[in-house]
Amino acid sequence: MNYRSLGKSGAYVSELSFGSWVTFSKQADVDLAAELIKTAYDAGVNFFDNAEVYEKGKSELVMGKALKKLGLRRDSFLVSSKVYGGVVDEPNPNQQGLSRIHIYDGCHQAMERLQADHLDLYFCHRPDPRIPMEEVVRSMTELIQQGKVRYWGTSEWSAQQLMEAHSVARQYNLIPPTMEQPQYNMFERYRFEVEYARLYDVIGLGTTIWSPLASGMLSGKYDETTPEDSRINLPGYEWLKKFFESDKGQERIRKTRELKTIADDLNTTRAQLALAWCLKNENVSTVITGASRLSQLQENLNALDVVPALTGEIMDKIEDVIQTRPDPMEFQIAKD
Amino acid sequence: MNYRSLGKSGAYVSELSFGSWVTFSKQADVDLAAELIKTAYDAGVNFFDNAEVYEKGKSELVMGKALKKLGLRRDSFLVSSKVYGGVVDEPNPNQQGLSRIHIYDGCHQAMERLQADHLDLYFCHRPDPRIPMEEVVRSMTELIQQGKVRYWGTSEWSAQQLMEAHSVARQYNLIPPTMEQPQYNMFERYRFEVEYARLYDVIGLGTTIWSPLASGMLSGKYDETTPEDSRINLPGYEWLKKFFESDKGQERIRKTRELKTIADDLNTTRAQLALAWCLKNENVSTVITGASRLSQLQENLNALDVVPALTGEIMDKIEDVIQTRPDPMEFQIAKD
Amino acid sequence: MNYRSLGKSGAYVSELSFGSWVTFSKQADVDLAAELIKTAYDAGVNFFDNAEVYEKGKSELVMGKALKKLGLRRDSFLVSSKVYGGVVDEPNPNQQGLSRIHIYDGCHQAMERLQADHLDLYFCHRPDPRIPMEEVVRSMTELIQQGKVRYWGTSEWSAQQLMEAHSVARQYNLIPPTMEQPQYNMFERYRFEVEYARLYDVIGLGTTIWSPLASGMLSGKYDETTPEDSRINLPGYEWLKKFFESDKGQERIRKTRELKTIADDLNTTRAQLALAWCLKNENVSTVITGASRLSQLQENLNALDVVPALTGEIMDKIEDVIQTRPDPMEFQIAKD
Amino acid sequence: MNYRSLGKSGAYVSELSFGSWVTFSKQADVDLAAELIKTAYDAGVNFFDNAEVYEKGKSELVMGKALKKLGLRRDSFLVSSKVYGGVVDEPNPNQQGLSRIHIYDGCHQAMERLQADHLDLYFCHRPDPRIPMEEVVRSMTELIQQGKVRYWGTSEWSAQQLMEAHSVARQYNLIPPTMEQPQYNMFERYRFEVEYARLYDVIGLGTTIWSPLASGMLSGKYDETTPEDSRINLPGYEWLKKFFESDKGQERIRKTRELKTIADDLNTTRAQLALAWCLKNENVSTVITGASRLSQLQENLNALDVVPALTGEIMDKIEDVIQTRPDPMEFQIAKD
Repeated sequence: MNYRSLGKSGAYVSELSFGSWVTFSKQADVDLAAELIKTAYDAGVNFFDNAEVYEKGKSELVMGKALKKLGLRRDSFLVSSKVYGGVVDEPNPNQQGLSRIHIYDGCHQAMERLQADHLDLYFCHRPDPRIPMEEVVRSMTELIQQGKVRYWGTSEWSAQQLMEAHSVARQYNLIPPTMEQPQYNMFERYRFEVEYARLYDVIGLGTTIWSPLASGMLSGKYDETTPEDSRINLPGYEWLKKFFESDKGQERIRKTRELKTIADDLNTTRAQLALAWCLKNENVSTVITGASRLSQLQENLNALDVVPALTGEIMDKIEDVIQTRPDPMEFQIAKD
Repeated sequence: MNYRSLGKSGAYVSELSFGSWVTFSKQADVDLAAELIKTAYDAGVNFFDNAEVYEKGKSELVMGKALKKLGLRRDSFLVSSKVYGGVVDEPNPNQQGLSRIHIYDGCHQAMERLQADHLDLYFCHRPDPRIPMEEVVRSMTELIQQGKVRYWGTSEWSAQQLMEAHSVARQYNLIPPTMEQPQYNMFERYRFEVEYARLYDVIGLGTTIWSPLASGMLSGKYDETTPEDSRINLPGYEWLKKFFESDKGQERIRKTRELKTIADDLNTTRAQLALAWCLKNENVSTVITGASRLSQLQENLNALDVVPALTGEIMDKIEDVIQTRPDPMEFQIAKD
Repeated sequence: MNYRSLGKSGAYVSELSFGSWVTFSKQADVDLAAELIKTAYDAGVNFFDNAEVYEKGKSELVMGKALKKLGLRRDSFLVSSKVYGGVVDEPNPNQQGLSRIHIYDGCHQAMERLQADHLDLYFCHRPDPRIPMEEVVRSMTELIQQGKVRYWGTSEWSAQQLMEAHSVARQYNLIPPTMEQPQYNMFERYRFEVEYARLYDVIGLGTTIWSPLASGMLSGKYDETTPEDSRINLPGYEWLKKFFESDKGQERIRKTRELKTIADDLNTTRAQLALAWCLKNENVSTVITGASRLSQLQENLNALDVVPALTGEIMDKIEDVIQTRPDPMEFQIAKD
Repeated sequence: MNYRSLGKSGAYVSELSFGSWVTFSKQADVDLAAELIKTAYDAGVNFFDNAEVYEKGKSELVMGKALKKLGLRRDSFLVSSKVYGGVVDEPNPNQQGLSRIHIYDGCHQAMERLQADHLDLYFCHRPDPRIPMEEVVRSMTELIQQGKVRYWGTSEWSAQQLMEAHSVARQYNLIPPTMEQPQYNMFERYRFEVEYARLYDVIGLGTTIWSPLASGMLSGKYDETTPEDSRINLPGYEWLKKFFESDKGQERIRKTRELKTIADDLNTTRAQLALAWCLKNENVSTVITGASRLSQLQENLNALDVVPALTGEIMDKIEDVIQTRPDPMEFQIAKD
């Protein structure tokens, strides 16, 4: 396993990392979770991703118990949480979003669920336009100053919002965000490649990529029909099913089918190809993978072997199929 | 119950909140306090106000025991204290006012009395011209950075003093005050409406209003004679009695009598009318109500239903009776 | 003529302003330029836009002579220049882009050509990634501090770049940009309406809109065939011709044809409709119009009468035709 | 003549200074103006006050010519202007108020009218809530940095606004206001004595007092009937006439009559008594006097001799008559 620095920060993350998202609690109990974590850990994975909102805290609870069961050295891995949605059902304006109140309470409660004396990475799971940026950046800075959090970051913030956080941090001598957790895959590239382009240098932004398989689509498992056990049949994922059935979704499924030849030629799977493709981008710090079965995790981990095979020639072939290279000038035709 | 943001901060407070001032300890024991808090909480009240000086700490002690008895989730409500007067009788220059010494000790002792691991709001109960503003703002900032306080504010500070605190915070990169607890009611409007006018925008000041009934006067209970059990007959309230008997006091009692017709027409009480009238001002974040009896609390809570009934026409009628709209130019007659 | 504040700055610009772009020097001599400026000025236009690169300085020369001929009070109008492309043919790395060298020399030379003792607005005509942002913002700040420039801004910068300039200004206590000159019209909306959305508040960004007619297309003059005297037949405008002939260009010509009914119903022209449509957006500070004939200028100025006629219903009708409302979520389909 | 420092700044102003307000141009031509200035100057007056709005620039023109005629050393006196109202009749949003545009143009034009290479004091004649405070303070700072202005200040700003300017100056390392020009006299005391109380120390605010005679009332000339040549009969002063005839005005005239005994006992006039009374307040830097006749000026200057006669006993007697000592607690009756 190779390790990459998390942007310009001092933290190093394994190229592949492991996220619990939909799997822990819903599809994996503590024993299975422990087995998955152990396998990843033994393969060199050093970052385990989580969020308060994943299964309303249960995903963190399961991960916390699994980590405890394994008895791994606390200083040998990184664990994260993300604050935004809260864990309770009853509406409480102070326990949602990014106020100092919820940033603090969310952190304390995640630490408790994860049985962790600190969070290595703590993300703002979404932007919260209700809250002054100064309050968000101050609260995150304070948690770092209290030793509860090592690095703070964001997820799905726009380049403007990231710069705004950076600006407030520089203006008030607070700690700027270190990393962003964006979606990035063969089909979703504009934000990562164009909108964020300057941030890797200006902020020194690190990235922890999610959805490298485009909600599983790039694995090819939706080539013909949808497998019964797919998450797209889970309650709450109707939006995903709808998207798969749309014109845009169908076109992507078609392109994914075409990728099979390239994958076959490289003696790999399309899932591995898609993960390796993400890692070819040097602005990616780590690609978060998920798995509800050991075999799936193993397949993902093997993607690392594919990276060196992705020569310029192969990358061009992939581009010919997916045709998604974003145009930085997409929004400008006239000249002044 | 609706919630309003506390100025431009990320905290949300219920439109009506509950303060213990003179009632807890003196007029309400732990059991009654718990009952009052529970009733308010169930109605959506999320902010419980207190101060070290209320009954010299006993009010906080009672509230702490009542909250513990109820076993409410700590992250589901906000609790405050205020520092200034201290809790001991013997004069000690270090345990009064706003030095770093008393701001810290006051905070720690209030947390202990309230059995709270942090204070959501912590107020400077009065300005303290003896103490350099930098020391006040630094001490409050430090308590926030230590995780003991979430937001700090002031009570009965002038606009100049609030701007001075803001200025010091901006100059030395400390945390500016978030909220002020001013008196505001139909009879006392100049400061809130004129003197503070720019602060709601410039500082983003939130406000937690006290004395919405003008020391109870607006409820109409002093219409004819003073009820035996009124606080104005309590020892220590001679100043209030004297004011009620002054010309100014008598004029207010007369106006309060006239408000009865308007309240009757709306099928409400004058107390409810007075509370609802405060809430019509969008710069009010929350109106603190007190109660020593359940029935009184219930009446207060019902004031929320009166707010929508206060149309422009009704507000004009009220103005015709009270005639207290402040003149922003009161202090200027000549032109230059 | 109404005036709008230029973002949160203290400058006020007329809703319609006058830009010389391609017309001065190429299509209008000093006498005609003076006539156009006088007509606009008498109608209340108070901002005359220019740039060093327009006809390589000749546009500013003509405007300078025309203004001098008219003898208008210098304090009764605002004049701008923009720095980036330089005015000489031979390549000189120091007289292009946004180095301190070219920002200074560009300012001095524009002042001379415009015969102006100061520039009211001075724009960075494009972003220049070669130059450290600190140097750009410092240079602009220095020109303001020297009294040569009143407000500085940008043109066609991304939200990220604008925030970066703002961030550098706040970090080093320099002057942030006041305004941006973006393209904005019925067909180009994403950047102005989505990407910039928070900047109007966070930076207080003012906007001086160019291309309100989408390179003239929205006037309807390309409905059937291209008129001989159109700028799309001028040398150097081959890119525009090519765009008009593309699928996207043809679709826009078709939509423009459909707008005719709406314009006819309002007893106005499509050019006026397009200008008025821009002014309905409150984040527009001023719409820059160009004209090479008095009649054309007059038509543009009359667009102001159309604004009040653009009711919500009419705006919906226009939307039904153009169907260009941008989707803020365009780049996100998956959920986390 | 004694000199007092202008607040905590390094500038020294004569205890009495000379302002042109309504007199120059309207009541005094260049020759008379020169005579008045020379007399004041010879008596030690070192500050001559003006404003762009006084007679729409003509007051400055007359003062400029008079100063030139006298040929006084430029470094031996201080001259001021004030920016806000502009000098032209036609409405121009950019040549009124406190934008960078008008602050600059106002300064340049005042310097030209006054024939002065710099302004010693430059005031914001009124607050301008339309303009961001940062723009106001930056513009004033820039003019000082360019050497055009020595000290900047305000006139008739509230304590909150003064603190806001101070706050912005400290936050962005700009120059805070040095002085304020408020109304202050026996009848108008609240702002100067209560609202500003902390500013003399916190900001180090200097004050150049206007209206020391309460629009002439305190001179006693309205004791019986209004003299024909009084300014209250000038067009544009109807507001003043109306005030004099009001209950409040009549009460003041009555009190002024009562002051005659005290003045007589001291062998002085009531005008001199009123000027000397202002100078007893150490927070007054200078009292601006006006005069349209030499004799009037001489009378004012002799007020300096009265100051030592105002013992504590005499001041108490005056207080007994005027009864205007402001109550710092005027707006607070209830206790918390």
